[in-house]
Amino acid sequence: MTQAALYVGDRTFTVEERPAVPPGPGEVRIAVAYTGICGTDLHVLHGAMDHRVSVPAVIGHEMAGRVAELGAGVTGWRVGDAVTVMPLAWCGRCPACRAGNQHVCHRLTFIGVDSPGAMQGSWTVPAETLVGLPEGMSLRHGALIEPTAVAVHDVRRSRLAAGEHAVVIGAGPVGLLIACVARSVGAAVVLVELDPHRRDVAAKLGFTVVDPATTDPADFVDGWTGGAGAAVVFEVSGSAGGVRTATGLLAVRGRLVVVGIHPVPREVDLHRVFWRELEIVGARVYRRDDFTEAVRLLAAGEAPAADLISAVVPLSDVAGAFDALERGGVVKILIDCGGGR
Amino acid sequence: MTQAALYVGDRTFTVEERPAVPPGPGEVRIAVAYTGICGTDLHVLHGAMDHRVSVPAVIGHEMAGRVAELGAGVTGWRVGDAVTVMPLAWCGRCPACRAGNQHVCHRLTFIGVDSPGAMQGSWTVPAETLVGLPEGMSLRHGALIEPTAVAVHDVRRSRLAAGEHAVVIGAGPVGLLIACVARSVGAAVVLVELDPHRRDVAAKLGFTVVDPATTDPADFVDGWTGGAGAAVVFEVSGSAGGVRTATGLLAVRGRLVVVGIHPVPREVDLHRVFWRELEIVGARVYRRDDFTEAVRLLAAGEAPAADLISAVVPLSDVAGAFDALERGGVVKILIDCGGGR
Repeated sequence: MTQAALYVGDRTFTVEERPAVPPGPGEVRIAVAYTGICGTDLHVLHGAMDHRVSVPAVIGHEMAGRVAELGAGVTGWRVGDAVTVMPLAWCGRCPACRAGNQHVCHRLTFIGVDSPGAMQGSWTVPAETLVGLPEGMSLRHGALIEPTAVAVHDVRRSRLAAGEHAVVIGAGPVGLLIACVARSVGAAVVLVELDPHRRDVAAKLGFTVVDPATTDPADFVDGWTGGAGAAVVFEVSGSAGGVRTATGLLAVRGRLVVVGIHPVPREVDLHRVFWRELEIVGARVYRRDDFTEAVRLLAAGEAPAADLISAVVPLSDVAGAFDALERGGVVKILIDCGGGR
Repeated sequence: MTQAALYVGDRTFTVEERPAVPPGPGEVRIAVAYTGICGTDLHVLHGAMDHRVSVPAVIGHEMAGRVAELGAGVTGWRVGDAVTVMPLAWCGRCPACRAGNQHVCHRLTFIGVDSPGAMQGSWTVPAETLVGLPEGMSLRHGALIEPTAVAVHDVRRSRLAAGEHAVVIGAGPVGLLIACVARSVGAAVVLVELDPHRRDVAAKLGFTVVDPATTDPADFVDGWTGGAGAAVVFEVSGSAGGVRTATGLLAVRGRLVVVGIHPVPREVDLHRVFWRELEIVGARVYRRDDFTEAVRLLAAGEAPAADLISAVVPLSDVAGAFDALERGGVVKILIDCGGGR
């Protein structure tokens, strides 16, 4: 039996004891130690993903734990190995897969939304999704590998280079991680954030943060870059205002990476896109090499996991954990799923 | 003395005899044979460029002619050489110039809009703007080098490769030239165009053309590409509808090149940009290597100049030439400026 948090619709979770799912051929059962709550999980709670989630559903995809049981034919892993999961399953046959872009497969299954997730003590997944944790990395920090891989992918898509100026609009968990990854490649980084708590966290991580309510980001960037503009802007806020601000900050041939989710079309200054030969680049999830780099960055402390984990909450209080995230004033909340120790 | 067409504001041209401008140091006076009318020239006529054009103004920048007089210190050119002009002058000191992107200089002078242009029998320009015509290329065809260089630049920005599928939205002169250049790199090309005359011209050039009033371009592209979508879409219409259509046609990691002028912000489906990891790429004017490739394509017949020139009109009837362009049913109209023969 394993404890599981079940999203049952109508903004509600219940916690139940359920039988653990035995691993089939090619699968692995993981004893889950910690599962982080992602913005996507909040969207699920709000009902925005009800077309993809069949209730009752276990969600969650940012996790770390230990291999507990191997299905038939699984090689390369041993019971007790510390692991996280790259929660993607692709079809292998669609045009995107055939072109080598399996991570944006036309029929992508995002494990933890489209199929059962990690907010339970015991999680069974395909063995090929496993990513090993390095010797000495704590399981709490391991739960940050997945969001860090998102940030690595976003920075890779931007082609950001050492010495360039980058702006991150939105200093939530993903924005902060992008800022850390951008700094790790040698870029100069500034964040733009309305929320004072998030500005504090970013400042504690050593970043300059602009409050757009008191400082015009365009004026700031103009001075910061000697009139050139930023080489890269990451739009992580998902807001119409963020998009409007973003194009105005970019240098000639600058790149705007669309990280935030924009549920409706946004007005974009295509005249400036033309005039400055800008690029707008979409970035979605990650590839295997992004996980590899995320593990390296967390192990090296370049993504400061300890500073990003605001609280660890028991699985029995999953509802309270979501409440705390909604109230704000926190960065990343981990759910202690009880396994893997 | 030289004959010149003068834009005097209020949708009006006059034709006058004026003294030819002698070339200063580093300049060359050209006897202008033919000058094409560009969409930008129409914008001037409509008053949309009045903030950049000081009337009375000679406009025009798509031309060919012969070197008539060399200023002090000019080397590498002889009187009688057949030439066209790359009509850009940059500052050399701004951040864009210092980064090697002189063609999108922060203080770019577009010669023929921001300074006097080629709708006159005698035109004096900096020697470094000259581009030689190859042996045997007619001066009429030479007047198409500049718009062809625009198309070459647009295709270069798209990174279109042989075997890829490309869609051109808008089959005006630039759209048709983009289609020709895209075909020359080995891509499969389709145009989308509402105007029946433009569809006819495109079909005569051997292209498949979709009428969006009767065929949904997304359905067409879906079938054409086996469900993958187009690798590249060129938005040349400058319309909100063109932008809306464009993102819907693109394959995973497809590129949308913004060629048309969008005077106001446009709604863009940024969710699809994220979901399919699309790129939106601005493309403005051209660089020297785009002119080199444009000369090669016209000389090789891959950009079929003869099929694109609808009429040649004497300079004395410049007003009639603009009227004909506004009435539609034509592709490119050249003004015979009388020089260079």
